[in-house]
Order: sequence, then C-alpha cells, then structure tokens
Amino acid sequence: MHDSLSQLQLLLARRGLDLFLVGQPENRRYLSGFTALDHGISESSGALLIPRQGRPLLLTDFRYQLQAEREAAGCDLLLYRRGLPALLKTLLPKFSARSLAFEPRYCLYSQHLALQRLCQSLGVRLVALDGEIERRRQVKQAQELAAIRRSVALNEAVFQAVYPSLRPGQSEIEIALALENAMRIKGAERPSFDTIVAGGPNAALPHAIPSHRPLATGEPVIIDMGLVLDGYCSDMTRTIVLGTPDERTVSLFRLVRRAQLAGLAALRAGVSGREVDLAARRVINEAGHGPDFGHGLGHGVGLAVHEAPSLSPRNRKLLKAGMVVTVEPGVYLKGWGGIRLENMAVVTETGHEPLNHDSTFLDL
Amino acid sequence: MHDSLSQLQLLLARRGLDLFLVGQPENRRYLSGFTALDHGISESSGALLIPRQGRPLLLTDFRYQLQAEREAAGCDLLLYRRGLPALLKTLLPKFSARSLAFEPRYCLYSQHLALQRLCQSLGVRLVALDGEIERRRQVKQAQELAAIRRSVALNEAVFQAVYPSLRPGQSEIEIALALENAMRIKGAERPSFDTIVAGGPNAALPHAIPSHRPLATGEPVIIDMGLVLDGYCSDMTRTIVLGTPDERTVSLFRLVRRAQLAGLAALRAGVSGREVDLAARRVINEAGHGPDFGHGLGHGVGLAVHEAPSLSPRNRKLLKAGMVVTVEPGVYLKGWGGIRLENMAVVTETGHEPLNHDSTFLDL
Repeated sequence: MHDSLSQLQLLLARRGLDLFLVGQPENRRYLSGFTALDHGISESSGALLIPRQGRPLLLTDFRYQLQAEREAAGCDLLLYRRGLPALLKTLLPKFSARSLAFEPRYCLYSQHLALQRLCQSLGVRLVALDGEIERRRQVKQAQELAAIRRSVALNEAVFQAVYPSLRPGQSEIEIALALENAMRIKGAERPSFDTIVAGGPNAALPHAIPSHRPLATGEPVIIDMGLVLDGYCSDMTRTIVLGTPDERTVSLFRLVRRAQLAGLAALRAGVSGREVDLAARRVINEAGHGPDFGHGLGHGVGLAVHEAPSLSPRNRKLLKAGMVVTVEPGVYLKGWGGIRLENMAVVTETGHEPLNHDSTFLDL
Repeated sequence: MHDSLSQLQLLLARRGLDLFLVGQPENRRYLSGFTALDHGISESSGALLIPRQGRPLLLTDFRYQLQAEREAAGCDLLLYRRGLPALLKTLLPKFSARSLAFEPRYCLYSQHLALQRLCQSLGVRLVALDGEIERRRQVKQAQELAAIRRSVALNEAVFQAVYPSLRPGQSEIEIALALENAMRIKGAERPSFDTIVAGGPNAALPHAIPSHRPLATGEPVIIDMGLVLDGYCSDMTRTIVLGTPDERTVSLFRLVRRAQLAGLAALRAGVSGREVDLAARRVINEAGHGPDFGHGLGHGVGLAVHEAPSLSPRNRKLLKAGMVVTVEPGVYLKGWGGIRLENMAVVTETGHEPLNHDSTFLDL
C-alpha cells in the first residue's frame, strides 16, 4: 500500500498539514499492515501518526507490541502507557508540528475535546480530514482484488460444503454455527459479520438473528454469510428452500432475481450508485412490492464488509472501475418471510466482473 | 429497568433538559430492552429519544422494525428512512424542545456537526451529557446479578465440557472454535469477545489471536473466554498445561495466583480501583516481574464485557456494593509465553462474592 501512503503524504503537503492521526481500524490496516481490530471505538488498539514525509509512527500499547512489531514493518513503533493524548503531548513538539489532521468519522466528540485542549496548549491547529483514505480504498488495487476473489471463493466453498447437509428440523442457530465453523476450519480469519440464517417469518427481518426455531419444509430460508481472508471480506446471500417451494415463493424468487439481474446489468463505471439501485428497484416496484424492499440495493466491500460506495437512491456519485459492490435486492413480507439474493461484482469500464459463481436457488 | 429510566428523567428535569438522545447500544438496551447491536459506530441500529416525562421513543429503521416492536414494549416506535437527523428535524419541534442532550462518548465528531447544525436551525440548545447511564449501569440490580451469575455459570460449564478433550497437537484455533461452538449450543447469544487460546510464545501477547500453531506438551496455554446470556457478559481466564509444567512455570503460576488472591482480598465497597490494583501489583512487583504485568488488574462487566469501574492504577474512584469486576493479573515474557488468571466477583460492603467456582489450574 506504499502508493496510497505516499499519495496521502502528498495531500498533506498540498494542504499544509504536518501530521495525520489515523485510528479507524481498516484505514490503519490499509496504510500499515497492522491487523488489530478495536474492541469498539472507545477501546482503540492504536493509531497511525503520519508525517508529511518519512515513515509513519504506529502508536499502540503494551498489549499489541509484539503484533505491531511483526506486522507493521514499515512503521516506527511507539508505546503509550498513559493513553494516546499524553503521548501526543510529547510527540507533537518533536515534529515541530503546527497542524494535526484527524478523522472526523472515527473520532468521538469526547476524544475531539481532549485533542482540541491538547492542540490549543501547544499552538497546533486541529483539522478534520474526512474520507481521504476511505475514498482511496474504494478503488481496489490488483492484489486487493485478488484477495477479494479468494475470500469470495472460500465463502462459496463453505456454503457448498454445508448446504447439502441441511435438513428440515435443524435450527437456524445450528446452521449458522455449522457455516461459521466451516469458515474457520477452511482458514478464514473470522466471519465478516454475524451469519444470518432466517426461515419463515424470521426472514421478514432483513437483519434477522438466528433463533432456535427449526426450519420447516417448503419455506424460504435466507442465508447471508461472509468471511474475512487476508483482511478482505466476502458477503453473499442465498435463499434456499428445503423441499418444494409453493407458487408464491417461486414467483417472489423470480422477481428478486430479475431485480438482481437488472441491477447487475446497470452496473458499470460512470453510472451513479442511485442509477444502479433504481434499475433493480424499478423491477420490484412494477410488481407492486416496492414497499417490501426497504433497504438499499448494495454496498462496497473490501477491508470492511460495509464500505463506500453504496448502491442506494441517495448516492449520486459515479462509480469507478475497480470498485467492488454487492447487489442484493430483497422482498420482505411481515408474517410470511423474505427472499434476498446477494452477489458481489467488480465494477469495470464496460460493465462488471461477477465475483460469485455459486448458482444455488438463483434461477428457478 | 423502569427505575433507571425514571431516575434519568428526573435528572433531565433537574438539569432543564427536554430530550436525551441515547445511541450507545448497551445504554439503549438497558433503558428499552431493544437488543440490537450496532455494526460499528457508523452503522447505528437506532437511538432512544427520552423526554423529560412519558414514554421514550425508539427511533430505528425498516430493518429493525419487527425486532423493536417485539422487544421494546415500553417505547413508542418511529422509523426513519432518510437517517436520524432528518427525523429529528420533524420531531424536535413536536416536543417544543428547547434543549437536546447527547452522549459525547458515543457521538462522532461528524455526527455532532450534523446535530449542531440541526439544533442551530431550530433554536435548540445541544448539551453533552456524559456517563449518566454508564454510571447507573455500574451498580447492578438484583435481576442483573442473577443474569450475570447465569452467564458465568454457563461459561464455566462450557470450559469444563471442552477442557477434558484438549490434547497436545490441537491448534489454538481448533480449541477456540470448540469453545465458541459449545457456548452457542448450550444457549449463549454469542461469545462476549473473540475467544483467546494462546500457547507458548503466542501467550506473551495479552490480546493474542488464536493461530494454527499446535499446542505442545508442558507449555502454559492461556484460555480467555466469555459469553453473553440474556444480554449479560461473562469473562474468565484459565492458564492450563497439557502434561507436566516445569518449575519455572509452576513458580510463575503461583505468583500470578497469589497476586489474584491479594487483589480479591483487597476488594470491597469504599476502596478505590487503584488500591485493589496495587494490592495485586505489589505481589508481582516484589517478585521482580512488575514490568511483565503491563495491563490493569481488572474491569467492570455487565451488558458490556468491558465497562466501568476499572481496577487500574489510574482509577481513584471508590467501589460500591453491587459492582461486578474481573480480577486478572498476568505475567508475560517475550519469547517464552504468559500466564493470566481471571475470575469475576461482585463487590459487597464487607468484601466480595466470588462468581467463579471453577478451580482448574488455579492452585498448583
């Protein structure tokens, strides 16, 4: 990621910024290789301090020392014992820093107050620098695309290993566990989000939590699963039926699949996230199910499982080649259940490269 | 939790605050029963809007509608489609609100900017209200203690079910998976944090990530595990040896255990977190291993697995009866490994009530 780092340092120079404090875990990893996660935003495992020139500093604590030494070879390592602000108080003068940039979307109001107090006492200007790393992360480099392809392939291999063993009477939790086990046994770092297995009425909740409810014959069961491999996420949804689906189920399956294909067909560089969303949404609207598709069509995927760009009516920005997105329309009927189909794709100049190849219950 | 809600409403009245916006997931759950988690601070699953009098509103989106209806019976439900600020723009005037309190430790700088803009346009005063719910959460009510006891008991049952099956040659990941599976099969909602299984040199990292490394005979293996049951967390660490520990290992085990017992003996209402930490730390310092114990002695546990109060040299606040804490000294030697022992206890007026009863490898 050295290109991104030096581009960012050029940006700092252009804006007259001396240092950039980067704490957002995926941004931190993107620029340094340090893979630690935060246990919530209040329990940081460290921050990068990026000067306009030269090597970044990785500031962390005792608990992460060995991991940081091993992973962040391009950084100088400094440990804090009394918290980050106390370390910054001694560091900023060493850099003769007159300005410090921070991430406004990964800095709590309370943390900003502490930084502001510190900067005022040192005569340092504190500047919000928003989305610069996230923007660079949207367009994937070749080795990132390779990692994502591996992550998607492993995710499909997990699904295909578990799917044939599914039987009516198994609980949603049991199946979610079997999938997450298979992920880790096959070498994933972890699930990229809590695996969703939701059958019957539970599937009417797009963010359902697996329950002890046994799966019934003939009902649609949403399985939304993803994993992390070498830091990169995958995300796929299949809706399966154990036994024979009834007519209504089949017709809703076909509707959702047509919407997905319409979304994929609209996907290419130069088109806005909104246009892709609307291409799929139109299909569902015309079938009278508009109100039953209450979420956006898709989202970017990379080091984070949800990242920019979003495919939603609110995103008027144009897509670029090398972005990776999900296309996941759904229809949810309270009391009955739901159907969602989700594939990932790379945006290209002329259209898209499909990342998923599994076809289970896609074309009925 | 109706007591906490009405106490909080009294506080709002006393401070002349009309509304309190509560987004922190554990605080939200504590006051409403709504169990949804956030997928990171940028992907909120909702917020409570608490008026000075009357029922709180639960503001969420389409995805969580059914779950919110089911779980948050004491709240009125309102859905937003265009984000929380847009909904607040129509809501604040309906309440004739002249002030809005927010949580400074769960509000991003960027979110605060948006709130500030909104409040300015409506002539509403925006006020940071810090730690009021967290402070109330520290002292557990009777039914919370009962839930924590169940969570700790289930966590020990999981450990005791898996422990006899452990063999040299198994990988850290394999064991972590076996533990997390057993948690969920036995009815836990989820692990309360990523299970740590770390043997040999990997155990020198207090926050080690399980690896594919096979466990060797005779080496200490740190197992740090916890689960969530009915929303409440448990957290326990055992260090085990497969085979016979050598003399150095035994002597370090005994040192850490003596430190733990010293910490537990110092624990009672009216004593500061610092004093309890130092009681344990003194034992390790006197053995010359002070620099090898680089973290605090313990932390509060409840709806969050890490919450106030901390047992650390920096916490001069006095403990109260009904607080629940971990006592977890450790010694970590780079290149060799580590030993950590962690039990949970309830602070009482005269001392503590131990929550853990498992004695595996505690007293050698």
